Amino acid sequence: MNVEFINPFLSSLINVLATMAQTELTPGKPKVKKDEVAQGDVSGLIGMVGPQTKGSFSITFEENLALTIMERMLGERPDSINEDVTDMVGEITNMVTGGAKNLLGEKGYEFDMATPVVVSGPGHTITHKCDGPKLIMPFTSPDGNANIEVSFDKLA
Amino acid sequence: MNVEFINPFLSSLINVLATMAQTELTPGKPKVKKDEVAQGDVSGLIGMVGPQTKGSFSITFEENLALTIMERMLGERPDSINEDVTDMVGEITNMVTGGAKNLLGEKGYEFDMATPVVVSGPGHTITHKCDGPKLIMPFTSPDGNANIEVSFDKLA
Repeated sequence: MNVEFINPFLSSLINVLATMAQTELTPGKPKVKKDEVAQGDVSGLIGMVGPQTKGSFSITFEENLALTIMERMLGERPDSINEDVTDMVGEITNMVTGGAKNLLGEKGYEFDMATPVVVSGPGHTITHKCDGPKLIMPFTSPDGNANIEVSFDKLA
Repeated sequence: MNVEFINPFLSSLINVLATMAQTELTPGKPKVKKDEVAQGDVSGLIGMVGPQTKGSFSITFEENLALTIMERMLGERPDSINEDVTDMVGEITNMVTGGAKNLLGEKGYEFDMATPVVVSGPGHTITHKCDGPKLIMPFTSPDGNANIEVSFDKLA
């Protein structure tokens, strides 16, 4: 895997948030993750399995950003990360991964998606346990930060 | 999916912990999860994709239990949940799911596993976002509690 494999997830995320929540995130520099740890308050995770590879994707939001996205989608701001917010994060995880799956499929990389899992808890960290490299992409916004992380085993 | 589908994960977990760490967990009563939320300090999650179904599995440990398992495996107790502990939780997640995959395969339910992801953070909660029912199984032990959760879409 090289850094280019994060681009389909990046463009899919930007597209999903602009469409669903009129929210613009500013992408930082993608990095091959070594000791860096993605930290946030609510995360969506999903597994991916294909004939050539398997892997995992995660997206992590700071609480304020997640609540702001929710507010823009529903017109009402929850007080905290409740079930509506975790549902939304699960849905974003599905949509971003689905968009990236289409883009990667056009390049000949096929995979199927598992169902998403959402984690909530202040300042939790996510570690993808995969033999292959892990790519992390930070995003900033006036409402808080997010990051995505993609990890694939044995992708050419 | 019915409650029986959690049994392969249950027996696989008990087997893995007894073999790797001489640790005996006492299973509680499996429940179809509604509002109940699994809470813990370190969790392993993995996606599953098969021709008939897709889903997710998670295992969540209280910190003291995770550190005790680590101590029994390595002879040394880490001060906190470090990378060695998250590696171990990822490995347990793989082994438990692999064992359950074999048992479910014998019953004609096939799936492939994605790569595991490990979450750490005090008192985080996990929510499986799946159309199907979610089964949760609590475990107790003198060293702390754990629970596993399994969720499958569209399993007969």
